[in-house]
Amino acid sequence: MLFLSEDNIKKAVTMKDVIDAIDKTYSVYEAGQFQMPERMQVKNDDNTLLLMPCFTGDAIGTKLVTVFPNNQTLPTLHGLVVLNNSESGEIKSVLNGSLLTGMRTGAIGGSAVRHSADKGASSLAIVGTGVQGLYQAIAACTERPIQTINLFNRSPKKIPAFKESLQKWIGPDISIKAHDFVEEAIMDVDIVITATTSNTPVLPNNPDLLKNKLIIGVGSFQPTMREFPESLYDIAKHVIVDTEHAIQESGDIATPIEKGWIKKESILTMSQHILNHSQLAAYEGRSVVFKTTGMALFDVVVANLMFQKAQEKGVGTKLSM
Amino acid sequence: MLFLSEDNIKKAVTMKDVIDAIDKTYSVYEAGQFQMPERMQVKNDDNTLLLMPCFTGDAIGTKLVTVFPNNQTLPTLHGLVVLNNSESGEIKSVLNGSLLTGMRTGAIGGSAVRHSADKGASSLAIVGTGVQGLYQAIAACTERPIQTINLFNRSPKKIPAFKESLQKWIGPDISIKAHDFVEEAIMDVDIVITATTSNTPVLPNNPDLLKNKLIIGVGSFQPTMREFPESLYDIAKHVIVDTEHAIQESGDIATPIEKGWIKKESILTMSQHILNHSQLAAYEGRSVVFKTTGMALFDVVVANLMFQKAQEKGVGTKLSM
Repeated sequence: MLFLSEDNIKKAVTMKDVIDAIDKTYSVYEAGQFQMPERMQVKNDDNTLLLMPCFTGDAIGTKLVTVFPNNQTLPTLHGLVVLNNSESGEIKSVLNGSLLTGMRTGAIGGSAVRHSADKGASSLAIVGTGVQGLYQAIAACTERPIQTINLFNRSPKKIPAFKESLQKWIGPDISIKAHDFVEEAIMDVDIVITATTSNTPVLPNNPDLLKNKLIIGVGSFQPTMREFPESLYDIAKHVIVDTEHAIQESGDIATPIEKGWIKKESILTMSQHILNHSQLAAYEGRSVVFKTTGMALFDVVVANLMFQKAQEKGVGTKLSM
Repeated sequence: MLFLSEDNIKKAVTMKDVIDAIDKTYSVYEAGQFQMPERMQVKNDDNTLLLMPCFTGDAIGTKLVTVFPNNQTLPTLHGLVVLNNSESGEIKSVLNGSLLTGMRTGAIGGSAVRHSADKGASSLAIVGTGVQGLYQAIAACTERPIQTINLFNRSPKKIPAFKESLQKWIGPDISIKAHDFVEEAIMDVDIVITATTSNTPVLPNNPDLLKNKLIIGVGSFQPTMREFPESLYDIAKHVIVDTEHAIQESGDIATPIEKGWIKKESILTMSQHILNHSQLAAYEGRSVVFKTTGMALFDVVVANLMFQKAQEKGVGTKLSM
């Protein structure tokens, strides 16, 4: 069995590798070549254990995540992924689940940038400077010649540490600027990514500030959560989701359908979009909206890639069971 | 995070330690101090992934087991247990699930021997010489001054390897004899343990061969499976189960209730038996029957013990996440 820590995973794969794995996942998803039951939730007072298994033809993966919202100094989430051989059931690998989730969620955004952003997109705004925002920024820089990154966070305290981490990942040549107002942060950029846990829109309800952009929502993963304002749906040329589940799971899709701001039939899945090689980046005053809520299938395909690359490079700790 | 392999676990704990942990589990069970949802099953063709989570006040444990019935050379089952801190969710340990399951199931039988066998019991029969039978024999020898072990297996081929493994665990002083007929194997012994995957009784339907014994059933864990014959229920002084679930789960309890051989109200749980310090070993021509189907609560209490003992003894591989 191969154990892969955060450091091991960083040595084994690049963000581009993971974005390639996300694109591969969409073709597995479109072909229905997987078994993925609804995730299991075990609750104990405020704390939750989530179990997210998935079978593909290549591997069996299970992500285990604990959510302890009252943790003060420690992170709220702790996770790992167990990877089993799909031919024999043998345990192939145990991987750090936090980095895996960060990189795969970043790469889901990165894949949306790859397939839907203007080829010359050079500026990016990150709204919400948590761990997910970090990997989103890294992934966007992997796919487009980004020169400028604008940051906005409700609590500005978190920005300096975020800026330092991000600069370390992407190098000194890309300029990173903190902004006091979200309007300022998003005004002139090509790509906007929201990665907050907000229940109310974090982008301004002003079509002039939202038009001609690729807008990616990472935060809202429950029907009660929302990051996008009403006017975004008026100027959206396309609304794309990573999975069919996102339509019910995310308040950024479910609420607009319920309120009649968009029609359910008009929503595309990213897998169909990639399969049809459809051209989505024609703006003319409108925007492309992509919303991800994720699924275990992404985790197992990405975990299997990390395992294979780590084996090739001799990275990780080999353990006898 | 501490990784514990099969070898590490063998160094960290004795079978007596694990039997003590099983007795502790019964008091947690009786007090209801746990959260244990029904296990999750993911099926893909003939293969199954089982996820068995449980919260206690001391730890959070999840057992993951793959069942691949068509494996030819590799074992059918592969498993591990993930242990999280119940205060913070942090990952404390990943343990070999096969040895853990073998030892805890052995120890459930060992606890039944501790609480229900005659103090001077010196002979034992094992029907079914698979991996579960091995740990049952070891655990019984831990609790009583066993001098003789009789073995019976439908396919005698498996007996020599089993005998060798068992002799290594229990030492050269205990005599181990293989038998060609189950009647011969169980005739004169104090304790009989069945550990098969049979759908039809593996013990003879002859009260004379079944009386004055402690009879432990480990195999039947589904309503379609049975190891015990009808006449056992006529001469049973007590029928004890490890959990309330066993009553529905095991064909050795569900079928006799359905057919009217025993009344549901007469079945005791081991936790009540221990709590009440009831005397069950008075035979007078009758027998005590114990049936176990297990539960995730046993796994998490035992895993936590293994983790603590391994830490005390400096055993295992420390891994940075």
